[in-house]
Amino acid sequence: MKQRYVIGLDFGTKSGRALLVDAKTGETAAQSVKDYAHGVMDRFLPDGKTALGAGWALQHPKDYLDTLEYTVREAVSLAGIPAGDIIGLSIDFTACTILPIDAARRPLCFLEKYKNRPHAYVKLWKHHAALPQTSRINEVLAEEGLIDLPLYGGKVSSELFLPKVMQILEEDPEIYHSADAVLEAADWLTLLLTGENRRSFSMASYKAMWDGEKYPSARLLRAFNPGLEHVVEEKMAAEIVPLGSKIGELNEEWAGRLGLLPGTAVGASIIDAHAGLPGCGITKPGQMMLIIGTSSVQAVLSEKPYSGKGVMGGVNGGIIDGYYALESGLAGVGDIFEWFVSNAVPERYGAMAKAEGKSLFRFLGEAAAKGRPGKSGLLALDWWNGNKTPFVDAGLSGVLVGCTMATRPEDIYRALVEATGFGTRMIMDTFAEAGVEIDEIRACGGIAEKDPALMQIYADITNREIKVSASGQTAALGAAMYAATAAGAERGGYSRIAGAAAAMSRTRDRAFTPNPDNVAPYSALYSHYRELSAYFGANGIMKELKALSGGQGSADLLTSRIN
Amino acid sequence: MKQRYVIGLDFGTKSGRALLVDAKTGETAAQSVKDYAHGVMDRFLPDGKTALGAGWALQHPKDYLDTLEYTVREAVSLAGIPAGDIIGLSIDFTACTILPIDAARRPLCFLEKYKNRPHAYVKLWKHHAALPQTSRINEVLAEEGLIDLPLYGGKVSSELFLPKVMQILEEDPEIYHSADAVLEAADWLTLLLTGENRRSFSMASYKAMWDGEKYPSARLLRAFNPGLEHVVEEKMAAEIVPLGSKIGELNEEWAGRLGLLPGTAVGASIIDAHAGLPGCGITKPGQMMLIIGTSSVQAVLSEKPYSGKGVMGGVNGGIIDGYYALESGLAGVGDIFEWFVSNAVPERYGAMAKAEGKSLFRFLGEAAAKGRPGKSGLLALDWWNGNKTPFVDAGLSGVLVGCTMATRPEDIYRALVEATGFGTRMIMDTFAEAGVEIDEIRACGGIAEKDPALMQIYADITNREIKVSASGQTAALGAAMYAATAAGAERGGYSRIAGAAAAMSRTRDRAFTPNPDNVAPYSALYSHYRELSAYFGANGIMKELKALSGGQGSADLLTSRIN
Repeated sequence: MKQRYVIGLDFGTKSGRALLVDAKTGETAAQSVKDYAHGVMDRFLPDGKTALGAGWALQHPKDYLDTLEYTVREAVSLAGIPAGDIIGLSIDFTACTILPIDAARRPLCFLEKYKNRPHAYVKLWKHHAALPQTSRINEVLAEEGLIDLPLYGGKVSSELFLPKVMQILEEDPEIYHSADAVLEAADWLTLLLTGENRRSFSMASYKAMWDGEKYPSARLLRAFNPGLEHVVEEKMAAEIVPLGSKIGELNEEWAGRLGLLPGTAVGASIIDAHAGLPGCGITKPGQMMLIIGTSSVQAVLSEKPYSGKGVMGGVNGGIIDGYYALESGLAGVGDIFEWFVSNAVPERYGAMAKAEGKSLFRFLGEAAAKGRPGKSGLLALDWWNGNKTPFVDAGLSGVLVGCTMATRPEDIYRALVEATGFGTRMIMDTFAEAGVEIDEIRACGGIAEKDPALMQIYADITNREIKVSASGQTAALGAAMYAATAAGAERGGYSRIAGAAAAMSRTRDRAFTPNPDNVAPYSALYSHYRELSAYFGANGIMKELKALSGGQGSADLLTSRIN
Repeated sequence: MKQRYVIGLDFGTKSGRALLVDAKTGETAAQSVKDYAHGVMDRFLPDGKTALGAGWALQHPKDYLDTLEYTVREAVSLAGIPAGDIIGLSIDFTACTILPIDAARRPLCFLEKYKNRPHAYVKLWKHHAALPQTSRINEVLAEEGLIDLPLYGGKVSSELFLPKVMQILEEDPEIYHSADAVLEAADWLTLLLTGENRRSFSMASYKAMWDGEKYPSARLLRAFNPGLEHVVEEKMAAEIVPLGSKIGELNEEWAGRLGLLPGTAVGASIIDAHAGLPGCGITKPGQMMLIIGTSSVQAVLSEKPYSGKGVMGGVNGGIIDGYYALESGLAGVGDIFEWFVSNAVPERYGAMAKAEGKSLFRFLGEAAAKGRPGKSGLLALDWWNGNKTPFVDAGLSGVLVGCTMATRPEDIYRALVEATGFGTRMIMDTFAEAGVEIDEIRACGGIAEKDPALMQIYADITNREIKVSASGQTAALGAAMYAATAAGAERGGYSRIAGAAAAMSRTRDRAFTPNPDNVAPYSALYSHYRELSAYFGANGIMKELKALSGGQGSADLLTSRIN
């Protein structure tokens, strides 16, 4: 049978990439990456004058179009594959990342009259300025006795769709009323590519409170803000399509711009943090996805819904059809290590690293790897960016216990690594409470690829085998699986995502296996980690320290992210 | 009236010094310092071969003699004062710092046959190897219901006299039995200088359980170890003389060696950490001495005895006649800052300090001084060396709470400074519980002299005015006051120590006054410091972390020290 290809497009926080792969085997044919020219705008609009307040994080939608066009063209050109052999493309994207558009599908910020209006731009997932709106929504949900429903997961985050859209309404009503629609950037792209007004079940359910059949009621929306009563019909109206299905087919205009054929299948988009689940080859409960880089995301398939304690998993088919997908993660992993290396490692270590021709990171990692569990006498709480599971609280902060005059930088570094391992185990325990026991971990992301010492510590702490994805672009590979499923078996793809995941993924030959000598001491340390976690999560000290500092401290945030 | 002079001799951990001052005004005429050639021996004996175990800390008594002779001769020579105008000398010395001597008053380590025997040397105050002996003593005291008596302060430390002497008996009985006496180095020096077998009330009461009338009973000593039953008569027999009194007069031999006149008064020695009390001019309850350097010592005069929670104050006249003196302090201050600067400040700070022509210490201190109370959101427990008040526990360790990605080295540095301030306030609260309210702080020591930013933070945290001693050698000045009192009013000295303290001390013109804006936020932080302290002092986590680390962690230590 003729070889067929699909394209997975991965739109991250700073750049986007196209991965062109064999639709049967998942093998990479070519890839291309492009940074966003405007990056993340958190201080000024592109005019360099209009200042943004605390917590703002915008992007320029033009960057997405440039990246889309450039990376698809380059990947296809590098692979030297005829456009006719490419049967589908699909997108994974950061979320909730939304923008207002006009009836001609133009972002409002493209219009001359709105180009200096902050609310006309894309609100990036980590835009944390909709705090009053978030508080109001949570108050109403609490009053109505709804807040503990799986759909709301105990508390709505300022990163979700409704707080962000409500902020537009309240702070710049003209933009709100001028918008023909407000939608996820991923949905905007598939709308442009196909002309079809359909939106992905992925973002709708995890970010916009779509329960599988409907959005929140008009009555509830009115309670949030009277002006939101009709937001669903006025700004969000569209068919919601399940994952693995087709949004539509590539139209003439975009086929031309991308160098592909009209009619190519365009799949429903997936949240970037979720694309790694099929990307790692996960097809059933018991296997846990771990994306580990700047922060981490953990996800498992489940027969039952569960939301609470920072775990989102209220909708069926959220990642793979037939299952609920429970998701949490750590608010900080690699970025804590970067903080440490930038702020707390003395000059002499830099000199030693240099003498050995190593990066400071590598030198420190090697020194830390010589430790053994408990040896340093240190224990940390990894809450530099707050805690998601179980407290869903960005006002919590990092702790280090056990310092003595003998404490050395490599000891602290290892304690920070271990703390993120304990946090990972705590989420696994929460999944277990929700009915999903983890048998095996499948990992991807920068740290999984490059830091075997850390992965071994994780295997020892979790007492689970960890298999690492063989792909260096697991999220984009996951997106390609959705493309292959959207294209369908009859065209050389798959009928089910699980089938694509099983066939198109591969893990590295060598897995990380728990070292029996390390399991017991790590269990002892973990019990103290839980004890400290329970103490600091409940006693209010960290919140009062934040309040005394005059810092924000009230951002709730903490949705899963991998950038 | 003719000008008279006295010499205060200050024997620290690494060096000794002589301060020659005007006996009426305390004004410095000259001073001289000399390092100990052997320093602290904690790995090998002087033979370079005989290894010492964990926790050992020895000194060579020859170093004391060399220092004594060199510094007195140099100070007198520099001042150009006739020996006849020098009416007395007195010593302050680290304690409990003890050695075995023979009947000819020679240290046993001077004898050829014992020169390779560790127990023949001086056990320095911080010798922490007598742990089994300390445990045994505490068990017996607990069984007998005596441990809570003021004399034992709730728990005997391995730094005290009896554990150290018991270690000699149990580990090298031949040395024990060969010794004609085992005594404080300070008492050995006054024995040599005067030929009088008298010992200072200071060391006997604070370090050897002398209750003002007697040592522990033979029955109790036998319970510690049957071989100790007669240790008082066999190894400690001597008259105990009160502070401010004369041990005797300088004999011919030592008058010759020092270049002084025979008959010069030699006062009873004082523990170095206590000499600063009269040295700072403290004469009544309500004034607190704060010696602050590598660690800190706090002492106050009291009408009533008190011992417990790490405070020693069970004997009347322990520092100044007519009063009890309560004493505690922090196990780490300057050494924690040194730890931080050596281990946790990144290269770029070194470069910035260099560019500004400053030491890293000074650069960091200035950056930290720009902060304000609570601004960093950090709170630390200053237990890098363990905690003395209230837990008397070297197994406790340091904590840092409140870390975020925005935390910078100067923030942590300031949090460590503040933590030592909170620890200081906690001791003041304990003194208040014992009946002594502090009105004013009088400070001396390296940090008091050189770090005004820290002293201001202390004033703000304690909400007390802090006066700094004008002398750079407050301990030696205190020793000189005991010399002036030993010489007596009739010879141009004083009849009471309080008189000498009032006349011979001076504080700097500018005091540190609490900034009212900072008092309230520091009170809020202090309440959290107390909360964390109560939690970590009681929950056992730190002890288990130490146990897991395989570290010693069981040393109880924590007597006051300034070196």
